[in-house]
Amino acid sequence: MDYQKIIDDIYIQIKGEVDTGQVATYIPELGSVNPDQFGVYLKTVDNLSFQCGDSLVPFSVQSIAKVFTLAMAYKLDGTEIWKRVGVEPSGNPYNSLLQLELDEGIPRNPMINAGALVVCDILLSKLTDAHNELLNFVRTITGDPSICYDLRVAVSERSTGFRNAALANYIKSFGNIHNDVEEVLNFYYHICSIRMNCRQLAEAFSFLSNNGSLSNGSQRILDEGLAKRITAIMLTCGFYDEAGEFTYKVGLPGKSGVGGGIVALYPNYYSIAVWSPRLNAKGNSSRGLSFLENFTTATGQSIF
Amino acid sequence: MDYQKIIDDIYIQIKGEVDTGQVATYIPELGSVNPDQFGVYLKTVDNLSFQCGDSLVPFSVQSIAKVFTLAMAYKLDGTEIWKRVGVEPSGNPYNSLLQLELDEGIPRNPMINAGALVVCDILLSKLTDAHNELLNFVRTITGDPSICYDLRVAVSERSTGFRNAALANYIKSFGNIHNDVEEVLNFYYHICSIRMNCRQLAEAFSFLSNNGSLSNGSQRILDEGLAKRITAIMLTCGFYDEAGEFTYKVGLPGKSGVGGGIVALYPNYYSIAVWSPRLNAKGNSSRGLSFLENFTTATGQSIF
Amino acid sequence: MDYQKIIDDIYIQIKGEVDTGQVATYIPELGSVNPDQFGVYLKTVDNLSFQCGDSLVPFSVQSIAKVFTLAMAYKLDGTEIWKRVGVEPSGNPYNSLLQLELDEGIPRNPMINAGALVVCDILLSKLTDAHNELLNFVRTITGDPSICYDLRVAVSERSTGFRNAALANYIKSFGNIHNDVEEVLNFYYHICSIRMNCRQLAEAFSFLSNNGSLSNGSQRILDEGLAKRITAIMLTCGFYDEAGEFTYKVGLPGKSGVGGGIVALYPNYYSIAVWSPRLNAKGNSSRGLSFLENFTTATGQSIF
Amino acid sequence: MDYQKIIDDIYIQIKGEVDTGQVATYIPELGSVNPDQFGVYLKTVDNLSFQCGDSLVPFSVQSIAKVFTLAMAYKLDGTEIWKRVGVEPSGNPYNSLLQLELDEGIPRNPMINAGALVVCDILLSKLTDAHNELLNFVRTITGDPSICYDLRVAVSERSTGFRNAALANYIKSFGNIHNDVEEVLNFYYHICSIRMNCRQLAEAFSFLSNNGSLSNGSQRILDEGLAKRITAIMLTCGFYDEAGEFTYKVGLPGKSGVGGGIVALYPNYYSIAVWSPRLNAKGNSSRGLSFLENFTTATGQSIF
Repeated sequence: MDYQKIIDDIYIQIKGEVDTGQVATYIPELGSVNPDQFGVYLKTVDNLSFQCGDSLVPFSVQSIAKVFTLAMAYKLDGTEIWKRVGVEPSGNPYNSLLQLELDEGIPRNPMINAGALVVCDILLSKLTDAHNELLNFVRTITGDPSICYDLRVAVSERSTGFRNAALANYIKSFGNIHNDVEEVLNFYYHICSIRMNCRQLAEAFSFLSNNGSLSNGSQRILDEGLAKRITAIMLTCGFYDEAGEFTYKVGLPGKSGVGGGIVALYPNYYSIAVWSPRLNAKGNSSRGLSFLENFTTATGQSIF
Repeated sequence: MDYQKIIDDIYIQIKGEVDTGQVATYIPELGSVNPDQFGVYLKTVDNLSFQCGDSLVPFSVQSIAKVFTLAMAYKLDGTEIWKRVGVEPSGNPYNSLLQLELDEGIPRNPMINAGALVVCDILLSKLTDAHNELLNFVRTITGDPSICYDLRVAVSERSTGFRNAALANYIKSFGNIHNDVEEVLNFYYHICSIRMNCRQLAEAFSFLSNNGSLSNGSQRILDEGLAKRITAIMLTCGFYDEAGEFTYKVGLPGKSGVGGGIVALYPNYYSIAVWSPRLNAKGNSSRGLSFLENFTTATGQSIF
Repeated sequence: MDYQKIIDDIYIQIKGEVDTGQVATYIPELGSVNPDQFGVYLKTVDNLSFQCGDSLVPFSVQSIAKVFTLAMAYKLDGTEIWKRVGVEPSGNPYNSLLQLELDEGIPRNPMINAGALVVCDILLSKLTDAHNELLNFVRTITGDPSICYDLRVAVSERSTGFRNAALANYIKSFGNIHNDVEEVLNFYYHICSIRMNCRQLAEAFSFLSNNGSLSNGSQRILDEGLAKRITAIMLTCGFYDEAGEFTYKVGLPGKSGVGGGIVALYPNYYSIAVWSPRLNAKGNSSRGLSFLENFTTATGQSIF
Repeated sequence: MDYQKIIDDIYIQIKGEVDTGQVATYIPELGSVNPDQFGVYLKTVDNLSFQCGDSLVPFSVQSIAKVFTLAMAYKLDGTEIWKRVGVEPSGNPYNSLLQLELDEGIPRNPMINAGALVVCDILLSKLTDAHNELLNFVRTITGDPSICYDLRVAVSERSTGFRNAALANYIKSFGNIHNDVEEVLNFYYHICSIRMNCRQLAEAFSFLSNNGSLSNGSQRILDEGLAKRITAIMLTCGFYDEAGEFTYKVGLPGKSGVGGGIVALYPNYYSIAVWSPRLNAKGNSSRGLSFLENFTTATGQSIF
């Protein structure tokens, strides 16, 4: 399969089309990015890589980091997580708070904000220095010690993150957050602020496409079964209320962030990161979705 | 892979455990079945088959038939369907009516009752004799002309199906059912009443595990792309509010029915049908779920 | 208090203003009325009456009839009703079906459609010939044997009443409707179709402003306590999701119908009926609301 | 009317019955009160007073204070309030957050926590020293300069008030809170912590039973129209999801607090305060409700 040619062809085609998406502006710091950037990076499990466009420009990973916190919490204590957060898709955006009420403070899954807040709370309870240990975990799976939090973004989100503060307090009212609410929010905004480029993201997710081991063979991050289960959660829950649409059109597990990044996996074959800041109405990168839909059609490779 | 031995071992193990599930009784006719029956049938795309237990005892397929109506409607007119029904998981059971209201009568996906009613309405509009044509379609994909509706079950469901009548009338109030409500309900209860055994179900779904073609090579039922998309919908939406759990634990696309049947697919490899009438609290066969979870663990084969 | 002058002045003022409301058209038969008609009739407990405009033109009482069914059911068996329907305001229109689900088929109050359907079901169970007995009850409290159902309106509503059919089937699925759904809907549409004019409506409600007795002293319809409780329910629940607004601005118990009629009571003093077909966005007569707000301001008479 | 005898008789009767209610314990500081206390105080508009039991024991007014903040905000700027909070009953407790979402951050009415938080925000914007000015307003309408905040209760509520913090942050996310969230919560907890006894509460509400003027004639607090509108809001919204039940059984406007206090009004006649700490399942004083129901039955005085 000539991945490079397929990537290049689709890239050129999409680059030539008008992108009607809008950059996220509710986090002030994110609004200042050049909206027309567009990068792609594919990493195979046998360590080949293919790239195109702005694949080395760093951006804010935002919700993609929820996979990092989940993987780390799963590694530390898989059994506790599932008492405090579910694995079901969340349905539509209107009812997240209603569902928390009906489900008595148990978020539907760890890929929505409510669930990620609970996972952050678990990490704060389990780790002595959660901020550094999580960052080191991301650096390890990426093989790149230069990855950092972007404190300006973290502060920017905190200053306007009233809805997340509402969620955290609401979950706390059911007893499903154990640490101080401010501390949990602070950690959550830090992990969302991580800056990475497409290459780093494709590297970071390669252990999930490689059954839990780093593709250079140096280290097992998670048991094969746990890696597959995280992948399953990405598939059913990774795109908010567009998860079904993504599975239907792209056919790969993935996770998006409002910074415009999307990571997807073809288990046993490759991980791929795409980035372009303009978002569609559901909050997912419009060029990213379009690229991945065209890419799995062209390669004929999906999990189905 | 010695499928027969794996099936036998798991079958014996589960058979030896107490099944705490309950047979569905809200449809009176279903309540009269022997609850301890348990059958398995696996059919590979290269036409090998493996079975165990009550694999030839017919039962009511119930919601599994929603895949048949979807496949037939998709074949007739793929573009119309997606204007009238979505592809997103439906979230929890509490809000199906709320979601219909917020989404103005557009059901979330074709695997929930609301969506299947709309698909039935589409078939009634497109076909001259929907009852017979749908039955013939099922006979064709199964390769078995003996399959029939069970009219006692259809009548039994109609007499107590007030919630489905509520859904159909509600959708009609938004204009998303075009035919007479009674006619749509009548057709819906017929398709749910189809009687099949595990062998027939595994056969019927083999075109989906075989990229859209019958595995004897005699006929293409659906384009490869359409077959994959139906498979994707089964994965994200096939188990009501336990879809995430099934994907997480089993890792295969599937569809269950309250008659106790479950069908699952491993694309390019096999289709498998499991049946045991006792249901867990979410309405899915408890032995069926247990069998499939053990089976994919033992074989190491899942889509992830 | 010179009621006649106050009525005339407000009538002339409102008649001179543009009425931006819209006639209800979802019931085809209602859409054919002359939308600019406007009538008022006030009846005091000491049998004085004051009127203005189209006070003798008959119209479809629609939801105002819910007070008649409630009064008759209350008279027959007050204790049973409150096991099957509540007395709480229903909140906003979005969640009526959600509330039925959360409350397991118990409607919030007898003034919303769901509650009125249950009350109709109770009457069908208690009475041998509910259609005639209810009509006779209305004729008795009005003192006018000429009042009739309008069968064209009843049929017209039935043919498009999918939402009510959804509600009735849904309540039946919880066991809170005992009779056949079609029979309940048929009775419900009959009572909504009753034709009355403002004079007849003011007469019909005078027993509620007179502590339960007909104002000519000939007959006690309800015990004083029951009459007061019906009045209390009208106040808190009589205007759907505009009940608070009506209480806030008008300060009297009342009930509206989509035919454009509104009846209100000043206990121990008078009953008043206002009619004008154009409705505001919440489905209440816009001139009717405006008239009553001005009327209680001008008279200084409200229950507060 | 011999109010004293009626009060005494009902008091003795209820005192002799077992009170199955439970003292609120979610605010730790409230849990330490003697649960069997029971007091009544009635104040007529012509300055007669009648009392019984623990009518001079101070307690935490809690939600009753929402009427004070509403009255003060209304006095300062009636027009702004109704752009930011509604006057409709809130329906059941399950959906308060859902309603905030559907109504884009506009609380249903000023008697629920969400609405009171917005009213507190308005006062913080309008007043230089809201804490002192609100306290002075309460002292003025009561005619008693000794009334104070109970800082231990305010602190106790803040430390466990995660649900209110969730509400405030959520409303802020829609832009309907203008001040700092912590400042709004702090003010809200202060006003809830006000300590008053039955006599003081009956005095404090007497201006509402007296058309807006202090009953000693010394001062007009609100225009008559505004006083009536606050009274109307108390009637439709004063008892959370038991407002309909209270109106139905008692027939007077009122407001309850989780400290066990209830104040009710008979416009133009009297204000009455009842206090007993044990609460029913809906969070209203069980003896208080029972007393008032018996009282209006015995006196035959209700607004209907």
